[in-house]
Amino acid sequence: MKRHGLSSIHAEKLFEQVYDYLLSGIRRGDWKTHEKLPSVRALALEMNVHRLTVFKAYQLLKQNGYVYVKDKSGYFVQPSELLPAGPWNDPIVSAYVQKSHLSEIHQVQATYQFSKALIDPNLLPNLYFSEYVKRVFDLYPKVLGTYSTAQGDQELREALCRYYTERFRFYLTPEELMVTSGSQEAIDLIARVLVKPRDVVLLERPTYSPAIDVFLRQGAHILSVEIRQHGYDLEQVERLMQTHKPRLFYLNPTFHNPTGYTVSREQRKRLVELAEKYQCLLIEDDPCRDLYFAKEPPLPLFSYDTAGYVIYLRSFSKYVAPGLGIGTIACRPSLMAYLLSAKALSDSGTPLLNQKIFLHYFFSERMQQHLQKLRTALAIRRDIMEEELAATDWEWSSPTGGFNLWIKLPDSTPMEKLLGTCMEQSITFVPGTICDPRRELATWIRLSYSYLNEQQLREGIRKFVGQVLALGGE
Amino acid sequence: MKRHGLSSIHAEKLFEQVYDYLLSGIRRGDWKTHEKLPSVRALALEMNVHRLTVFKAYQLLKQNGYVYVKDKSGYFVQPSELLPAGPWNDPIVSAYVQKSHLSEIHQVQATYQFSKALIDPNLLPNLYFSEYVKRVFDLYPKVLGTYSTAQGDQELREALCRYYTERFRFYLTPEELMVTSGSQEAIDLIARVLVKPRDVVLLERPTYSPAIDVFLRQGAHILSVEIRQHGYDLEQVERLMQTHKPRLFYLNPTFHNPTGYTVSREQRKRLVELAEKYQCLLIEDDPCRDLYFAKEPPLPLFSYDTAGYVIYLRSFSKYVAPGLGIGTIACRPSLMAYLLSAKALSDSGTPLLNQKIFLHYFFSERMQQHLQKLRTALAIRRDIMEEELAATDWEWSSPTGGFNLWIKLPDSTPMEKLLGTCMEQSITFVPGTICDPRRELATWIRLSYSYLNEQQLREGIRKFVGQVLALGGE
Repeated sequence: MKRHGLSSIHAEKLFEQVYDYLLSGIRRGDWKTHEKLPSVRALALEMNVHRLTVFKAYQLLKQNGYVYVKDKSGYFVQPSELLPAGPWNDPIVSAYVQKSHLSEIHQVQATYQFSKALIDPNLLPNLYFSEYVKRVFDLYPKVLGTYSTAQGDQELREALCRYYTERFRFYLTPEELMVTSGSQEAIDLIARVLVKPRDVVLLERPTYSPAIDVFLRQGAHILSVEIRQHGYDLEQVERLMQTHKPRLFYLNPTFHNPTGYTVSREQRKRLVELAEKYQCLLIEDDPCRDLYFAKEPPLPLFSYDTAGYVIYLRSFSKYVAPGLGIGTIACRPSLMAYLLSAKALSDSGTPLLNQKIFLHYFFSERMQQHLQKLRTALAIRRDIMEEELAATDWEWSSPTGGFNLWIKLPDSTPMEKLLGTCMEQSITFVPGTICDPRRELATWIRLSYSYLNEQQLREGIRKFVGQVLALGGE
Repeated sequence: MKRHGLSSIHAEKLFEQVYDYLLSGIRRGDWKTHEKLPSVRALALEMNVHRLTVFKAYQLLKQNGYVYVKDKSGYFVQPSELLPAGPWNDPIVSAYVQKSHLSEIHQVQATYQFSKALIDPNLLPNLYFSEYVKRVFDLYPKVLGTYSTAQGDQELREALCRYYTERFRFYLTPEELMVTSGSQEAIDLIARVLVKPRDVVLLERPTYSPAIDVFLRQGAHILSVEIRQHGYDLEQVERLMQTHKPRLFYLNPTFHNPTGYTVSREQRKRLVELAEKYQCLLIEDDPCRDLYFAKEPPLPLFSYDTAGYVIYLRSFSKYVAPGLGIGTIACRPSLMAYLLSAKALSDSGTPLLNQKIFLHYFFSERMQQHLQKLRTALAIRRDIMEEELAATDWEWSSPTGGFNLWIKLPDSTPMEKLLGTCMEQSITFVPGTICDPRRELATWIRLSYSYLNEQQLREGIRKFVGQVLALGGE
C-alpha cells in the first residue's frame, strides 16, 4: 500500500463511503426491490456531506446496476441478480452472505444431469483406488493420527514441483506451492487475501459461476472481458487495465469453462506482459489441461511469467478423483506468506490422508493409463452429444478438450419456462446467466457431456431437444 | 436487520467511518508503530466532518489500544499485538490478512512438543484404520468419484443426529447439522457469516488462540470474560451483554482450552437464559467432552436451548482421528441456510471419503474400546506431568479432562528469553499471551501432556523446569 496524500484520498473516500452505506443497506434488505431510496438532499443533510458527493454515489450505484431513476422522482432499488433473493434478512446475520448459484443447481436430483461438469464415476478406476489406499496405510501407518501443515505435505509438494517443472518449465520450489482442498478453496483464499470491497476485478464473460459469487461476496466491482474462440480482444483488456487498474484478472484460458475455448500461445505471452505493465495479477485456473482430445494445449501463462504476476491454480478433482478434494496454488513466496496465514485460519490444512492417496495414485503408471482412456471416453461422449444436436440449428463451437458444450439456443426460447419443464422431466443444465458476470446471456446454456453414460446421453439430449422445440425455440 | 431512522444511524456512522479509515490505515501499515497520526483539525478539514467527530474516533482508538497520546502533541500508533508485525506490507495484497499465531508455533520442529494439544499418534488404533477404510471402499466403491453435498453426507448426518439426541437430548434433524472440515472451518464459517467489522464479540480469557485470530480478522471488537475454576462471573457477562450488545459469545465450557475448567450445569442454564434475553448467540465449542478422567461433564448448553441461541461446534479431530478433519455445526435451520451458502463457496463440501471413514469408525465397537483406553492413557500422562512439576511452586489447577495444564510461572520469569532457550533445547510450549484476547497473561503458559509418550514427558518436563530455574524464575 503506497502512502497517499490525504487530500486526494479523502475526497474520494467520502463519496465511496456514501456508496458503501447505500449498497450495504440494499444488500441487507433495509431497502427492498423497487423501494425508494433517500433523496440526495436528505442524505446530504443527514450525513453532513455535500450534495454532489451523494449524487456521485448514486451515479455509481446506477452505473453498476443497483438503482434506477424514475420520472425524476428519485432513486429506486433495481431488481438485480447481483443481490441476494428470497428471505435473506435475518436480524441475527450480520455480515453479507453471498449465494452459491451453481451449488443450488447441483442440489437438484435428476436422471439427466447435464449440469455437472464432472467425470462419470464409472470412468474412474474405482477398483484400483482401494489398493492405493491400502498402500498408503502400509507406508504411513499413522497417517490418520497426523495433521498436515497448512501449506501441505512436503513429499507431495516436492513431487508436484518436479512434475510442474518437467512438464511446463515452472521452476518452482516447494515453498512456492500450497495444497488446497480443491479449487473452490483456492479461489476463496485468493479472493479473501487479494480483494477488498470496491476493488476492480476482471472476469471473463462467460466464466466459472462460483468465481463470480466469490468475488461478489468480497464486494469487488466486476468488469468483464469477452472470451471468444481464439481468446480475448487484447486491446480491450489493455484499455480496462489502463483505465480501471484492476487488482486481478481471473481467467481460465485452457479448455475454458463453460465455452471450451483455448487462448493461443501468443495471447498468453502478451497477457503476461500486460499484467506486469499494469501490475494486475493473473489468476490462471487450469483444471482441464490434461483433458485434450487432439493435441496438447499451449503452456500455461505461469510458464511465461518472470515477474511474479501469475498465480496458477490447479484442481485435480476434475479427472483424478473428485472425492479427494486436492488442488494446488503456485505463486511467488511473498504472496504465499499471506495465503498461508489465510489457509491456517480457514481449515488448518488439507487432510493428510487425502494428500498421500493422491500422491501415490497421481504418479502411478495406472494413472497415465486411466488418463488415456478418459480422453478417449470424453471425446466419444462429446461426439454423441454433437450428433444428437446436429439436427437443430443451435450454435456452438466443437470443444477440443474439457467437459462442456456452450450452446446458443434460439432467441425465442423462454428460458425460465424451459428450466421448469426440464426439472419436471428430470433434466438439469446450467443457464448462461449464472456464468455471466453481467447476468445476461439469457439464451445460452452449458451442457456437460462428461457425467452421463452414452445411453443416458442420447436419451437425455433427445428429450431436451424435444422440450426446447415444444416451447417454441425452433 | 431492523430499519433504522436515518438520523440516528448517520450521526454514529460518520464517526465510525473515521475510526475505520484510521484503523485500516494502521493495519495496512500506512502509519507505522510510534508514527504520528494526522491531527484532529487536519483530518476534520480533509474529511469535511466536525472536529468532534474525529476526536470521538481517536478516543475510541485510544480506548481500544491502537493509539496513544504524547505530551499533548497528538496521537501516535501504539505498538500492539493486535496488529500484524513484520514485513506485512505488500503493495499487491489488498485485504487485511490476519496471522495465525498458533500455527506459527506449530511450524517449529521439536523433540518435546508441549505446544501440541493433540493425541500422540501412537495412541490411535492405526492398524485398525486401514481395515475400516477397506470396508468403506467395499461398501461405496465409487466414493472417490463423488462429491459430497455442501452440507455433508446424509447418512453421516442422520447417524450423528441420532447420537446427539440419544446422548445429549438435542432433538436434531439432519437439516440442522452440517459436516465441516474440522473445527477451524466451523469457526471460520461462523465468523464470516455472523461478524462484520466493529461487531462486538465476547471471548473467554484465556481462550483458544485461533479463535482470537479469526474474530480479529473479521474486524470484531473483542471484549473478554474471565473464566475461572467454576465458570464465569455471570453478573459481568450480563453487564457486558446489556451494555455492549455483543453479537456472539464464543465459549468452550467443557474441559476448556487452555485451562481445563468446566462450567457448571447451573451456569450453563443461566447462560442460555441470558443469551435469549440479550439476543446474543452462544457459540459452544465442544471438542473434548468425551475425554473425561473421572465423571462425565454436564450436558452441553445446546441441550438447554429452546429459542435457538446456541450454535454447537464439535470437532472429532481431537480424539477420533486428526487426519480425517471432521467436525460438525448444529444450529437452527434459518441460520443453517446462511452457513450453507458460505460453505458452498469456501470448499464445496468436505471430502466424502473422509466422512464415510469417520462414519464407519466412529460408530464401531472398536471406537468405544479405543476411547476407554485413551481416557486412561491421558490421565496417566497428566499424572506424570504433575508429578514432575510437583517440586516447583508454580500454580495450576489439576484438569479432570482434556489435554492441557494451564500454569502460572513465577512473575520473575523472562518469557521471551525462555521461549528462545527452550527452542534451542528442542522444547515448545504455548505462551499465555497468544491465548489472551488482551495479549497479557505474560507469565502463564499452556503445556500439553497428550502428544508425548511417558518417557519423553518426564525428560522434557525436567529439562523445561531446569530452563525456567536457570533463567531465575524461582
